[in-house]
Amino acid sequence: MYNHISSYRVRYADVDQMGYMYYGNYPRLYEIGRVEALRALGVRYRDMEESGVWMPVYENNSRYIRPAQYDELLEINCKLETLPGTRIIFTSEIRNEEHVLIHVGRTTLVFLDEATRKVISCPPMILEKLQPYFSCDTG
Amino acid sequence: MYNHISSYRVRYADVDQMGYMYYGNYPRLYEIGRVEALRALGVRYRDMEESGVWMPVYENNSRYIRPAQYDELLEINCKLETLPGTRIIFTSEIRNEEHVLIHVGRTTLVFLDEATRKVISCPPMILEKLQPYFSCDTG
Amino acid sequence: MYNHISSYRVRYADVDQMGYMYYGNYPRLYEIGRVEALRALGVRYRDMEESGVWMPVYENNSRYIRPAQYDELLEINCKLETLPGTRIIFTSEIRNEEHVLIHVGRTTLVFLDEATRKVISCPPMILEKLQPYFSCDTG
Amino acid sequence: MYNHISSYRVRYADVDQMGYMYYGNYPRLYEIGRVEALRALGVRYRDMEESGVWMPVYENNSRYIRPAQYDELLEINCKLETLPGTRIIFTSEIRNEEHVLIHVGRTTLVFLDEATRKVISCPPMILEKLQPYFSCDTG
Repeated sequence: MYNHISSYRVRYADVDQMGYMYYGNYPRLYEIGRVEALRALGVRYRDMEESGVWMPVYENNSRYIRPAQYDELLEINCKLETLPGTRIIFTSEIRNEEHVLIHVGRTTLVFLDEATRKVISCPPMILEKLQPYFSCDTG
Repeated sequence: MYNHISSYRVRYADVDQMGYMYYGNYPRLYEIGRVEALRALGVRYRDMEESGVWMPVYENNSRYIRPAQYDELLEINCKLETLPGTRIIFTSEIRNEEHVLIHVGRTTLVFLDEATRKVISCPPMILEKLQPYFSCDTG
Repeated sequence: MYNHISSYRVRYADVDQMGYMYYGNYPRLYEIGRVEALRALGVRYRDMEESGVWMPVYENNSRYIRPAQYDELLEINCKLETLPGTRIIFTSEIRNEEHVLIHVGRTTLVFLDEATRKVISCPPMILEKLQPYFSCDTG
Repeated sequence: MYNHISSYRVRYADVDQMGYMYYGNYPRLYEIGRVEALRALGVRYRDMEESGVWMPVYENNSRYIRPAQYDELLEINCKLETLPGTRIIFTSEIRNEEHVLIHVGRTTLVFLDEATRKVISCPPMILEKLQPYFSCDTG
């Protein structure tokens, strides 16, 4: 498994009139989580895109456990639990300032060749960097 | 079943640098779909909130079939397939200008008493209006 | 002068914890106002962009007179008070359900050649359509 | 003068199909700049709001000099050039990764008593903390 933790401060822009972060703003947090998880691995999404590989979202599941409130400093724990093939699945666990799990997102993206708009396999530049986190000791 | 169709024009504000509507903007469309579906039924969400009943989102699942593009006039078909209890489930089918299904969202909300912050049953003001759409002819 | 009126329903996504539309959401309303003003004139911004002319924003001034509230149906009166040259200035007057002026935005955009990224003059396709609204009767 | 520098990474959520940060997303950056400027001073906006003082925006002027691009790490230099009275004026200078000034925002907010919804003077809790930065040596 590979994981990376980012933080996010809830802004006035994010909060609705219940005083909660609007439910539609969580995907922005998942984006931050996965882009920073890739950056920590040495992969910049902007470089990948410039090399002609896009990563559109295929599916997303969100579970709202407790609300996030204005000005809270959230923790985004972005996890990759399986090696990507033609799809890559990021799980985002979001915790509040008291380290309580308040939200879980599970986002599946595909790799797309910009030129042909066809689904392709995970580029070697990502796969090679992930491999060490997924190798198993077999004795 | 109860359903209602709304329309949504994709704005520059919504589109990312792939030229697609950003994946995090779909929840805004589901919101429009369900609020207008309730309004068509004679229930204004703002009145419900003023009466002390909140409807926070509990769960959301999104399936991205094809991208929505700038300036497209989308159709949001919001469906209620079961009568609400303590939860209400809206399915949003989004179609593009060619009437092709491009996206499906499934959003579960709960009814919350603002004062106690406890989950309650669907208020009668909604239930009574929905009942006619769910009565079955048994002969 | 040329003007066009659009409407906009304030969404939960737009409102902050004061119960007011977040100050940063008004530019989305100006965008709707000016794109629909151009469409009513027979000019689709998406066609212009496809023909290689971009209209990035150069300057924006916003005056917040009264708050817009959740679920209000706002009126956006988008005005062009002068014929565009290399710049085009849209004034957006926003009124609430009681027809009270609550907000004024003034947005200046430039015309940009996508290929050279140089500022150019207003394309004839817009200018010709606007001319009738600005011709003066001199006897 | 009092100033404080924050940083902001441009996200996919922020960028439009020109590949530029959408013009309507800059107010979010000003918000981050001024809230962090106040926090660095020892004032948390959330505490102020809980004490019954709101700060709605009264006016905003934005100058777009150069575009901000996806994944750039921007610098937000938030300046207070005069001591607040019933209004407080924040100037946000935004620079890109090459330290080039790309954007200037000037946001005027008022202090509002939540209970009466009347404009009030800047609360002492802010004024006292700012005073040292504005005292002049007179010999």
